[in-house]
Amino acid sequence: MAGELEFIARLRDLASHPAARGLNDDCAVLEVGSETLILTHDSLAQGVHYLPDQDMADVAWRLVATNLSDLAAKGADPLGVLIGYTLGRDDERFLDGLGEALRHYDVPLLGGDTITADGPRTLGLTAIGRATHRPVPSRAGAQVGDGIWITGAVGAAMLGLEALQAGDSDPAASLAYRRPDALLAQGQALAPLVTAMMDLSDGLLLDAYRMGIASGVTLAIDSAAVPIATPEGRRDEALRWGDDYQLLFILPDSVQPPVTAHRIGKVLARKDAPLMLDGRLLADASHLGWQHEG
Amino acid sequence: MAGELEFIARLRDLASHPAARGLNDDCAVLEVGSETLILTHDSLAQGVHYLPDQDMADVAWRLVATNLSDLAAKGADPLGVLIGYTLGRDDERFLDGLGEALRHYDVPLLGGDTITADGPRTLGLTAIGRATHRPVPSRAGAQVGDGIWITGAVGAAMLGLEALQAGDSDPAASLAYRRPDALLAQGQALAPLVTAMMDLSDGLLLDAYRMGIASGVTLAIDSAAVPIATPEGRRDEALRWGDDYQLLFILPDSVQPPVTAHRIGKVLARKDAPLMLDGRLLADASHLGWQHEG
Repeated sequence: MAGELEFIARLRDLASHPAARGLNDDCAVLEVGSETLILTHDSLAQGVHYLPDQDMADVAWRLVATNLSDLAAKGADPLGVLIGYTLGRDDERFLDGLGEALRHYDVPLLGGDTITADGPRTLGLTAIGRATHRPVPSRAGAQVGDGIWITGAVGAAMLGLEALQAGDSDPAASLAYRRPDALLAQGQALAPLVTAMMDLSDGLLLDAYRMGIASGVTLAIDSAAVPIATPEGRRDEALRWGDDYQLLFILPDSVQPPVTAHRIGKVLARKDAPLMLDGRLLADASHLGWQHEG
Repeated sequence: MAGELEFIARLRDLASHPAARGLNDDCAVLEVGSETLILTHDSLAQGVHYLPDQDMADVAWRLVATNLSDLAAKGADPLGVLIGYTLGRDDERFLDGLGEALRHYDVPLLGGDTITADGPRTLGLTAIGRATHRPVPSRAGAQVGDGIWITGAVGAAMLGLEALQAGDSDPAASLAYRRPDALLAQGQALAPLVTAMMDLSDGLLLDAYRMGIASGVTLAIDSAAVPIATPEGRRDEALRWGDDYQLLFILPDSVQPPVTAHRIGKVLARKDAPLMLDGRLLADASHLGWQHEG
């Protein structure tokens, strides 16, 4: 099989239930009785999604925060997490970080599975939440004329990773990479207002490209309006780097967000590409961000 | 850290929410509005939980069935699954088997995560269901004087694994190992009647030992009453081998099960061990079944 994209295409054929949202969203949205549940599962592989020698407390935090960030993009209130853990180096540190993250987000650990296996580890986490607003935001609702917004700066995780790799002794320098923040309160405040929302895991441009496809529109972004955590000379990189977990959201033109955010563009009728940057259409996703292909 | 048991002990300290059931059950039981959700996550590691060269269609089936078996032990009706998949050998076969299992159990694929990573693969699956009866059965309710029951024979998976390892050309010979059955209908029929229930993943004796601990009783099993799939000379092995996924359940003495099942013993007041086999107390769990330690 050619790789992840082809696999996912076939997986999508199996996921015909409406709750799966065609696997085009970061979460499943499942109606159960009078409740709307939000479900997500993300994995971290050693050496792929985290550094082989990284502090396992930070890895645990990341595992929790990245999944809760998916819930944040749906405006969900977390109900709990289940963990899939492979024993190995620094299990105590993992437990330390797991406890810190669960306390920080006030989310219960509900269960999971602990196994012993050889080789690089794969850690998984499932997060479950309940919708605080219905309909639940998706990537697919952006309307022509809407404004494009982002909750904060991109590029901070990139700088944090560089500091970590350089052995920077100041833990604050790598904090944005090591301990990403899931913007749960912002997501809940925004959910009743947005026409579309997602969290930024793979880079602003790539994720905006995907939202453009899902919504059948073209997202026109003004690169100079995007807040960046880097020096100006690295703006192009900051727009393409992932792991920042800001929320990208779309509001009707006249609506102001109830949380700190920055307007970075507007939604246009669909052109020859789902993304336009500074007036230039970007039809090829291959250089926009982190593509998940091995 | 000493291993899985110590890790789980510390994990248990983090899982203080009542829905986690102290991590002593195979599922979390979460009240959400008027619904009671049943949640479980189990992983399969290549070379540990399945043979390195095994047909990935069978591995996919096992991944689905073992998680649904946990739901069966709670009398739950499955709502869906989320998958954590690492790409590798025979991805097409995995998708084939995943589709077969999902259709067989009529369970929707809701979402998940697909990653690329090096080394032996770890595959995870989260299953979510809704309780069909409350209170939801646990391992902890066995009462003195109750009868101990099992839905069917043990040892079939052992024979199946041996056939597979021997290269038996008859696929039926290894079926019980390759394609375990999650007894969802039986679990739902039994849930209103049982005082305790669990599925057998690690061997009858070890799992009964655990139920005895959870219930604070001694389970007295008559080994000759246990149905086995093996020749008589291998009865001891059949009682200790895992992967059969029968339901072990406890009924008040006068209650007959509404499904095919075999009475294999009775519940006694707690003695010096949680398990008694043919009148002999078994206080040491170390030779009773599959212990999950690397």
